[in-house]
Amino acid sequence: MTIKLDPVHRVLDQHRLDAVAFVPGANFRRIFDREFHLMERPLMIIVAASGEAVAIVPNLEMASFENIGFTGKIFDWRDESGYIEAFEQAAGALPQLAGASRFGLEAQRMRVFEQMALAKVFPGAGFVDAHDAISSIRLIKTADEISRLRKAIEISQLALEAALGEIKVGQTEKQIEAILLRQLFAHGADGLAFDPIVAAGDNSAQPHASARPDYNIKKGDALLIDFGARWRGYNADITRTFFIEEVSNTDRDFYNTVLQANSQAQLVAKAGCSAHAVDDAAQIVLENSPFAIFTRHKTGHGLGLDVHEAPHIMRGNDQELKPGMVFTIEPGLYQAGKIGVRIEDDVIVTDDGIDCLTDFPRELRIIG
Amino acid sequence: MTIKLDPVHRVLDQHRLDAVAFVPGANFRRIFDREFHLMERPLMIIVAASGEAVAIVPNLEMASFENIGFTGKIFDWRDESGYIEAFEQAAGALPQLAGASRFGLEAQRMRVFEQMALAKVFPGAGFVDAHDAISSIRLIKTADEISRLRKAIEISQLALEAALGEIKVGQTEKQIEAILLRQLFAHGADGLAFDPIVAAGDNSAQPHASARPDYNIKKGDALLIDFGARWRGYNADITRTFFIEEVSNTDRDFYNTVLQANSQAQLVAKAGCSAHAVDDAAQIVLENSPFAIFTRHKTGHGLGLDVHEAPHIMRGNDQELKPGMVFTIEPGLYQAGKIGVRIEDDVIVTDDGIDCLTDFPRELRIIG
Repeated sequence: MTIKLDPVHRVLDQHRLDAVAFVPGANFRRIFDREFHLMERPLMIIVAASGEAVAIVPNLEMASFENIGFTGKIFDWRDESGYIEAFEQAAGALPQLAGASRFGLEAQRMRVFEQMALAKVFPGAGFVDAHDAISSIRLIKTADEISRLRKAIEISQLALEAALGEIKVGQTEKQIEAILLRQLFAHGADGLAFDPIVAAGDNSAQPHASARPDYNIKKGDALLIDFGARWRGYNADITRTFFIEEVSNTDRDFYNTVLQANSQAQLVAKAGCSAHAVDDAAQIVLENSPFAIFTRHKTGHGLGLDVHEAPHIMRGNDQELKPGMVFTIEPGLYQAGKIGVRIEDDVIVTDDGIDCLTDFPRELRIIG
Repeated sequence: MTIKLDPVHRVLDQHRLDAVAFVPGANFRRIFDREFHLMERPLMIIVAASGEAVAIVPNLEMASFENIGFTGKIFDWRDESGYIEAFEQAAGALPQLAGASRFGLEAQRMRVFEQMALAKVFPGAGFVDAHDAISSIRLIKTADEISRLRKAIEISQLALEAALGEIKVGQTEKQIEAILLRQLFAHGADGLAFDPIVAAGDNSAQPHASARPDYNIKKGDALLIDFGARWRGYNADITRTFFIEEVSNTDRDFYNTVLQANSQAQLVAKAGCSAHAVDDAAQIVLENSPFAIFTRHKTGHGLGLDVHEAPHIMRGNDQELKPGMVFTIEPGLYQAGKIGVRIEDDVIVTDDGIDCLTDFPRELRIIG
């Protein structure tokens, strides 16, 4: 048995699963510190509760795969013959899973064609969504993970400050996005956490807006920028909303309401508190404001190798926060056709509160 | 019925499906020219053969979704209540799909948790992998798509040439990767087609190697760079292999064998020819060389909104090439522990052959 798979065996045991199957992605990387492209060629590891583990690996990945420290049987397959035979061999090597086995899958990561291949070779199996269960191995961040997150955030904040120096009235959202991307990689990003959101004026009211090539930012616009660098696999996720040259009194109140919701969530969050309580603290500020009808989403999500992971900072989620968990605090208000404001920080839970990893100023800032 | 969904109805008809379901990704973008983040919040469109279409949309995406030109019923859901009720409402609006309906899914894109939600609300449904069928709407590129691909390739080639000017003996693979990333965004990339592969020396023998932070490139090394810019959704995918300061006679033969395989595939490819024949042309060159045992993968894959899509340039695939199809030609040889060489171009099928969209020189080049 591969020692690296010990955390997976704890999941199998705790959730009474006969097997879990996982594919390249955040859990795979957390276990083996290695990435593989997730494309049309399935690569999968199946871990049985009885102790055996097998891997199905595209032949062209074998040289890489052999270096990751996986000690189970490996069945490789080549483009010209396809992957089903390797799945059949894997099933043959795990006779204890024939029949009505309970398989846990990373259901938010694994794609349907990979599950279909499993279902074909384990015809009696029942498949359950074990995404949160398997991903729980990543909930508490190690010192190494935290230092990578800090580096991703440092790169992101320096890039944002540099980008702000280049932003001028009349530029399009697309031009500003290009400036930000250039600055992220000039400051050492390995990749992007996600395609940045650069949205001005009425577009800022769409929480996940796309940058427009034909809208020129103008005096009085809000400019919402939600972005993050990736560094050694770990993601920053930061939002700041600026105003171009001036801000109206109403927009200032709108902004400061979101800022207060952010501050309130940061005050409440600590070890022992629930994810529900953090969202609730932010939502109550928004709901008690004149802008109550403009809320659209939960306060935050976990952050690490995945950009969105547990703990989800959401009412109804009674998950207990523990030291070493990392998540975003990102309340927002969105008035359709007019303005959106979101202020997003990345925080880590400590014994008596949180450390805010992002220290880019949150106070209302007029630029351009 | 949304006119934009006409191509989907042709797929339903041709493959005798009762419905297809699709999620944000390349097909979604081809139909609606719009992207949505694919994270923990399901967004799905279900199109019934009878003509109706419904959408399940996270509430925070509604303002964006309402702009895409979808005219069917929309069921939105909010974080605090979850998505299952919206799926139930969608099923209720499609009573003709109750019972043993045949659902086609984008099985290489849709994730298992999304399919599980569908299975819950359509309990009698049978799900089939219709990934290639649905994606067939993107096989023949339009003039606009080709111009976006050309732009992505132009950015990539200029960035590569600029990066080569900065590469020196003693740098690590990671440093070279950082140079390349910076140059890609300085030249106007919107994003990355995929995380670049920068692999020198023995690492080049791993077709999908990861850049090492601790290997310093040295005289005589092969340096394989596989990368691409994304521009307005479309991806370049280019590989060149260089040599640092000098090249041995054996390595030169190794390189020129791959180059000859690339040229041979480019000579053979044309409208009316099969994908099999293009791979075969390249593989025969490799197999008739002294390096026959070092082949590892098929010759290429389609390229567009997805980095890997149809047509797959592979023996056994009798798909007929047609004008307007775009794919890669990327033969390679990989001698474990020693050297890998891949030379990858992006080509578009014309009536009497191909146009090679990539014109970065292919001849052996010594750098550093």
